[in-house]
Amino acid sequence: MQFSIQQNKLVDAVNDVMKAVSSRTTIPILTGIKISATHDGVTLTGSDSDISIESFIPAEEEGNQHVDIQRTGSIVLQAKFFSEIVKKLPKETVDIEVQDNFSTKIVSGSAEFNLIGLDPEEYPQLPQISDHHAFQMPIDLLKQMTRQTVFAVSTSETRPVLTGVNWRIEDRELICVATDSHRLAMRKAPIESGEISNITSVVIPGKSLNELNKILEDTNDLIDIVITDNQILFKTKYLLFFSRLLEGNYPDTSRLIPTDYKTEVIITAKDFLQAIDRASLLAKEGRNNVVKLTTFDNNSVQISTTLPEVGKVEEDVNCESLIGEELKISFSAKYMMDALKALDSTDIKISFTGAMRPFLIRPLDNDSILQLILPVRTY
Amino acid sequence: MQFSIQQNKLVDAVNDVMKAVSSRTTIPILTGIKISATHDGVTLTGSDSDISIESFIPAEEEGNQHVDIQRTGSIVLQAKFFSEIVKKLPKETVDIEVQDNFSTKIVSGSAEFNLIGLDPEEYPQLPQISDHHAFQMPIDLLKQMTRQTVFAVSTSETRPVLTGVNWRIEDRELICVATDSHRLAMRKAPIESGEISNITSVVIPGKSLNELNKILEDTNDLIDIVITDNQILFKTKYLLFFSRLLEGNYPDTSRLIPTDYKTEVIITAKDFLQAIDRASLLAKEGRNNVVKLTTFDNNSVQISTTLPEVGKVEEDVNCESLIGEELKISFSAKYMMDALKALDSTDIKISFTGAMRPFLIRPLDNDSILQLILPVRTY
Repeated sequence: MQFSIQQNKLVDAVNDVMKAVSSRTTIPILTGIKISATHDGVTLTGSDSDISIESFIPAEEEGNQHVDIQRTGSIVLQAKFFSEIVKKLPKETVDIEVQDNFSTKIVSGSAEFNLIGLDPEEYPQLPQISDHHAFQMPIDLLKQMTRQTVFAVSTSETRPVLTGVNWRIEDRELICVATDSHRLAMRKAPIESGEISNITSVVIPGKSLNELNKILEDTNDLIDIVITDNQILFKTKYLLFFSRLLEGNYPDTSRLIPTDYKTEVIITAKDFLQAIDRASLLAKEGRNNVVKLTTFDNNSVQISTTLPEVGKVEEDVNCESLIGEELKISFSAKYMMDALKALDSTDIKISFTGAMRPFLIRPLDNDSILQLILPVRTY
Repeated sequence: MQFSIQQNKLVDAVNDVMKAVSSRTTIPILTGIKISATHDGVTLTGSDSDISIESFIPAEEEGNQHVDIQRTGSIVLQAKFFSEIVKKLPKETVDIEVQDNFSTKIVSGSAEFNLIGLDPEEYPQLPQISDHHAFQMPIDLLKQMTRQTVFAVSTSETRPVLTGVNWRIEDRELICVATDSHRLAMRKAPIESGEISNITSVVIPGKSLNELNKILEDTNDLIDIVITDNQILFKTKYLLFFSRLLEGNYPDTSRLIPTDYKTEVIITAKDFLQAIDRASLLAKEGRNNVVKLTTFDNNSVQISTTLPEVGKVEEDVNCESLIGEELKISFSAKYMMDALKALDSTDIKISFTGAMRPFLIRPLDNDSILQLILPVRTY
């Protein structure tokens, strides 16, 4: 294998595939990046066996030559060194040549590196997924749906299935749900194009979705999504992102969501968020970062917390509307702040069914997103 | 004590004094910030007993009122909470009032905090230093001299005196020296105004100088410096920065500096630094981050390193001049990069006295700064 490549193209592709490379893998070859050169261009692959990422640099694109292939072939180079080296090379062009015994020469300007490579035949094959049943979604919508749900996955391995986001497809609508059993985030959106496979409920590891969000740029270009029994593939023009799926049945969360309410508050999200944030300055030093909300007759709610031996904080926030029963309820400030940030909404509605029951936070005029929080007993 | 204060002024002063507050102090009251209000303004104090910082907010400045004092007095508030609270207050004005039992009310907009304060009488007195013997220096020069030396102090407590920067005053010239016994940094500059006390050699903790550099803004305003037996005071219009001095005799470093040279290299600092940086990508994974420099007949030096089982790197760097004996020498890439960054110079001269002797790195036409590195044996 021998080729010359534009350094910036190589750095971008390396940064993408590095998202899948883990230094803590038990499979030594996966500490490497696989580099393959064909006459069409250069493909880089990184994998930690849960996530696999393939990034393609075309030899030519819109009349610009990115790669000059002198000899096709492939090699695996240690990701840690290769990724740092390519970033610090002195010139715009990099020459890469595999010599005897997988030894690989990387030359740019007067700098010459020789890295001991690994046999590319030992690198695992990526899943073979036919894209017959691909549906499409704008990339920015996919990123938003992930951002609005993935923070609510469980970080505990007690119930592994809860560390992922449940994707269900019903009536050409994609419904994303995440819960750690203390709170729940749900977001849905119609699927406008493509063909949906007969697999209509999967659980995607939260980590995979977070890494995917880091790689994808904010555009409204479409991304292809293919779901199989145990894998999901996200595919753009030059990128393949594979993630394994989590096994096990995702719990039916629909019955968690209350339908009758005793107290409803409509409030400006920003004012409410800032008051919670300030109360959290003291609450986060205590047990579980818990703040208390109290409704008042004068159309306001009070956020308060007391931290023994330090002090207390109280703040009244005016409501746009406050109807129903009087209420005192305690909840995690962190969960509330996560939910409010995910809603992306100016005005929100909070619907309570009593101090001991889960409550809902929603935008005022938008049914496509919902956040649910379980209160904390403080008596 | 009761006053109203502009939030941004309060935040700036809190950020300054927080540089001296440590959460790991053994003296409980020093986890607090002392706040004192007089009719002239508000003074904040933070201290970890090594460093003490006092920041003053004048009641009025150039016709702008920053503070409205309603009642003078003082209080100590827990630094961790007070510093976070002031940053997150909702309005431009903050009202602070000490009530019974040191309980302190902090109100801004609709947010009301009550912090349990501590008795200000228990807060230690800052050193009383008369500024009779103060000399002056431009702040940006002081910051530069610190930046060019302090990185070379020892991080080991084996010889505590080496964790500081030695300041000597000779013939109205300030000479700053730092060494960890593997390398040495020296920078000198004339003292243009003020009166120098009879104490002409002190050792200032490196940590103190680093914190001072973070607080001082880059201006050519003058700063007052007062040296006493066991303290040094840096004084600007609204800031007092005290540091204790390190005890013990600083070693005489002048005899370390060679005066005869066998090989001299003049080279562009940037090219040399980048080549060292690239070689360090492999070297830093090995023992001690060591790279090798080899002189060549064709007016170039080669930087190289080999990391077993990973690979090697070689890079030739053209010299502007290379005279004297052939040389192969090994040294720490980190020490060399630190030295080159400190020099701030386009072209540098490196003077070697043989593969086992310390060598000097200096700017081409500037005697006020010098960096020395001890080589590493690699055979």
